[in-house]
Amino acid sequence: MNENKTSKGLLLVVSGPSGAGKGTICKEFLKHNCNVYPSVSTTTRNPRKKEVDGVNYHFISKESFNELLKEEAFLEHAKVYGNMYGTTRNTVMSKINEGIDVLLEIEMQGAKQVKEKYPDGIYIFILPPSLNDLKKRIEKRGSETPESMEKRLESAFDEIGFIKEYNYYIINDEIENAVNVMDSIYIAEKSKVNENINNVINRYKEEKANA
Amino acid sequence: MNENKTSKGLLLVVSGPSGAGKGTICKEFLKHNCNVYPSVSTTTRNPRKKEVDGVNYHFISKESFNELLKEEAFLEHAKVYGNMYGTTRNTVMSKINEGIDVLLEIEMQGAKQVKEKYPDGIYIFILPPSLNDLKKRIEKRGSETPESMEKRLESAFDEIGFIKEYNYYIINDEIENAVNVMDSIYIAEKSKVNENINNVINRYKEEKANA
Repeated sequence: MNENKTSKGLLLVVSGPSGAGKGTICKEFLKHNCNVYPSVSTTTRNPRKKEVDGVNYHFISKESFNELLKEEAFLEHAKVYGNMYGTTRNTVMSKINEGIDVLLEIEMQGAKQVKEKYPDGIYIFILPPSLNDLKKRIEKRGSETPESMEKRLESAFDEIGFIKEYNYYIINDEIENAVNVMDSIYIAEKSKVNENINNVINRYKEEKANA
Repeated sequence: MNENKTSKGLLLVVSGPSGAGKGTICKEFLKHNCNVYPSVSTTTRNPRKKEVDGVNYHFISKESFNELLKEEAFLEHAKVYGNMYGTTRNTVMSKINEGIDVLLEIEMQGAKQVKEKYPDGIYIFILPPSLNDLKKRIEKRGSETPESMEKRLESAFDEIGFIKEYNYYIINDEIENAVNVMDSIYIAEKSKVNENINNVINRYKEEKANA
C-alpha cells in the first residue's frame, strides 16, 4: 500500500439493508487494518446482547440526543424502527483532517446524509446473497417480532434500489470473500493517483538532486 | 468478486518506466487471474534470452510491421530505442466486447495512445522504489550498454511525471506487495457500481416475484 502522510484521510462509509452483515464485515476488516479509525455511532436504542457502550455504540437517552441535535453536532442522524442513531461530526472530521482513515458503518438513511455533506467519501453497499438468506440472518439474531421482520424484509427490498448512490457493492455470500473485497477496495483507493501524487513524485526528484 | 456476464470486459493497462518490473507483476497477477486475457504485443526488436515468440511478443520484421501500420491495425504503436512495438486493435476490442477482461502491459508512449482511444480503461503506473533500485534492475537484466543505460535512467525520471495521466500507481518495492495491490485494484474495479448494476438488482426482483 502506498502511504501518504500529509494527505487527508479517507472516509469509508459502509451501509446496506439491516441484516446484510455489514457489522461482521467491518469487524473483520478492522482486525487487519488497525490504522483505520472506527467511528462509533450514538443511539437511543437499548443495547443488544453482548453490545458494549462506547464500543458498539454510545448509548444515550432521547433527551441527550435531542440536545446534541439542537447543537447541530451530527454529521448524520436517523430514526430507525423508532430509535435515533447519529454520528457526531467533530470526531469524524478531526480524524480525516489529521490524515487518519475513518470507517463509518451506518444505516442507509444516515449514509445518504453523509454523502450530501461529504461526497468525497467512499460509499460501499453490502448486499445479502438473497432475500431468503437475509431473512435467515435476521431470524438468527433473534431481535425481531414477526411484524418487525415483515417490515425489515420489505424495507430491505426497497433499499437495494439505493445501491446506485454508492461507489462499490459487496455481495456478502461468504464472509471471507466479502472481507477480501472490502480490503481490496481500501487498498485500491489508497493507490489512486490524485492531487497528493506530488508527494510521491517528489521522492524521485529529491533522490536525483542528492545523487 | 461480483460477476456480471452481459457487461463489457475491463481493459487493464499496465505501464511505467522500463525496468520498474511491470512484466513480473503482470506475470504473477495472471497466474491467479486466469480469466484475464493477456494481450500479446507485436515488436520488431530481437527476442531477449528466454523470450518466446507468441507468448512474450509476436516478433515480426520491420516490413511486416509497416504493412500493419498502413492497414491501421494498431490500437497503439511506438518506437522505443529504435524498435517498433504495437498492439493490434481487433484482438483487444473483440475480447472486451465479449465481456472478457484484457491486460495490456505496454511502454508509456503506447499507453498514452490507448488512453486517447479508450479512456474507459484502467490505467496503472508501476514505479520503482527508487532510481537507484531501477538502475540495479536494468543492470541485472544485462541487455544495456553504458550509453543506453544512461538514456534509460534519464527517460525513467522524465516518465515519472506522466503518472498524473493514470488512475492508479503501484510502487514495486516487494513483488508480493505489488501483486497484492494489482489484485486489489482488479477486485475493486469489478465491484464498482456502474451502469451494469441493474443486472445485480434484478436478482432480488426475480427472487421476490418467484416467492
